[in-house]
Amino acid sequence: MKLFNKIAIIGVGLIGGSIGLAIKKRRLAGEVIGVFRRASTLKKALKRKAVDKATMSIEEGVAEADLIIVAAPVSSIPRLAAEAVKYAKEGAVMTDVGSTKAWIVCAVEEMLGDYTAVSFVGSHPMAGSERAGVEFAWGNLLKDAPCIVTKTPRTDMRALNRIVKFWRNLGAKVKVMSPARHDKSVALISHLPHIVAFSLAGAVPEKEMACAAEGFRDTTRVASSDPDLWSDIFLTNRKEIISAARMFDKYYRDLIRALSAGRRSETVRLLKRAKAKRDKFTYPPSH
Amino acid sequence: MKLFNKIAIIGVGLIGGSIGLAIKKRRLAGEVIGVFRRASTLKKALKRKAVDKATMSIEEGVAEADLIIVAAPVSSIPRLAAEAVKYAKEGAVMTDVGSTKAWIVCAVEEMLGDYTAVSFVGSHPMAGSERAGVEFAWGNLLKDAPCIVTKTPRTDMRALNRIVKFWRNLGAKVKVMSPARHDKSVALISHLPHIVAFSLAGAVPEKEMACAAEGFRDTTRVASSDPDLWSDIFLTNRKEIISAARMFDKYYRDLIRALSAGRRSETVRLLKRAKAKRDKFTYPPSH
Repeated sequence: MKLFNKIAIIGVGLIGGSIGLAIKKRRLAGEVIGVFRRASTLKKALKRKAVDKATMSIEEGVAEADLIIVAAPVSSIPRLAAEAVKYAKEGAVMTDVGSTKAWIVCAVEEMLGDYTAVSFVGSHPMAGSERAGVEFAWGNLLKDAPCIVTKTPRTDMRALNRIVKFWRNLGAKVKVMSPARHDKSVALISHLPHIVAFSLAGAVPEKEMACAAEGFRDTTRVASSDPDLWSDIFLTNRKEIISAARMFDKYYRDLIRALSAGRRSETVRLLKRAKAKRDKFTYPPSH
Repeated sequence: MKLFNKIAIIGVGLIGGSIGLAIKKRRLAGEVIGVFRRASTLKKALKRKAVDKATMSIEEGVAEADLIIVAAPVSSIPRLAAEAVKYAKEGAVMTDVGSTKAWIVCAVEEMLGDYTAVSFVGSHPMAGSERAGVEFAWGNLLKDAPCIVTKTPRTDMRALNRIVKFWRNLGAKVKVMSPARHDKSVALISHLPHIVAFSLAGAVPEKEMACAAEGFRDTTRVASSDPDLWSDIFLTNRKEIISAARMFDKYYRDLIRALSAGRRSETVRLLKRAKAKRDKFTYPPSH
């Protein structure tokens, strides 16, 4: 049995498009409707067959949807969610894919207030790329990817369970936690690594890059991510990022200090501790 | 015509083994002799067919070699080069693959003094991996990889030209510069990214890694590199690394400060500048 009959995706870029392709590939819904802001993206998405139906009207897009996925940039999610709620049918479930959760979930829950005809559950499928746009979408983007689903005192447990099942059906590895816990985690494992990558790429004089190789390529890959998108992610999670940065700074400064003083055994000890941890991390093999 | 008839590789790990495989694949020498410290590696290298002949004696290994490549960890290169010179035949050319150059080239040139029967030219093929050992060696590791060859007032130009040709024949993209210039460049494009990756992996609490995805994977990949090897690389190039760290710190602190103060336009500007630079970097497609 299908979990949802009609699914509306608001914002069909890399993530939204990949979700659409995955739903269709796995036949998880009767119909996938894409809601677009730009006609050019709409055409690309239809060409990619990322959605069955495409519209530029939120009203038209969500009217019959059992599941509404807001797959827009973080800063516009609360506004689009509010707009969608106006036209959503009774019993609809809504989720999002934003990279920060407390800011989004708070805003949406506040907007919903006592209104229970639509249930909202925050999600963060941790997949993506430094590339943006539906032209890079593909149906296996979420396969084996971690996906955090958030739970608050207001969360409707039936809706939460359906959302968890939905992401699992797309192949993701789901974990449920509070929005605050999510934000603390991703500050460390995603937002801070992005900040460090941007800083490395920003600091290196362009002419030096001629001899750079794999180390530089991988360490700075995510610095090619979209600056507007990531500014909003960083700004909506800045408190946790600043805490995470303090942890990084301590390790980094200890290492630079050991080096400056020529203390080999301390340098080795710091590198060993980092390597031991990194060696335990096994992300599913590259797709 | 072959550039060198017999080539001795002292230290047959990931790099040395890959050089051996590449020479044999491209038939660039009559014979490749591997010099080993451990019998276990010697067996592995013969099994991989990375060398034609294997010995644990430097004397035996280098006696007839026209080219001697010291492919050992940075800290042992000067000692092994000195040992090799004792048994090298007149006219032999010697090079290395160490990741820092001023420290190595200085030590070897001082050791050679007025002795001109053997010519030394420093090299740094910028290829490798976080994995170590001849079992990961492969013949295309150097294909399209940047390779820096160093030139000093003492460098024999004929030997330098042969070394440049040698690396080009292996598929590498060669640049010639002074050891000091090399060390400044790699501090920025390789050593500092390694330090930052080690610091990120070191700072993240282990339990948080469960939800980490591609961003964390790539940004910290090189933190799985060998701690002893990299401690020596860092320590022999610490002056330049500390200068590079200052450039990184400035960008990083500006970004954290903009974020803390909630200044969106400044945050966007810093990310855009980093992205513009990173987007220009096109490393040869992954092998």
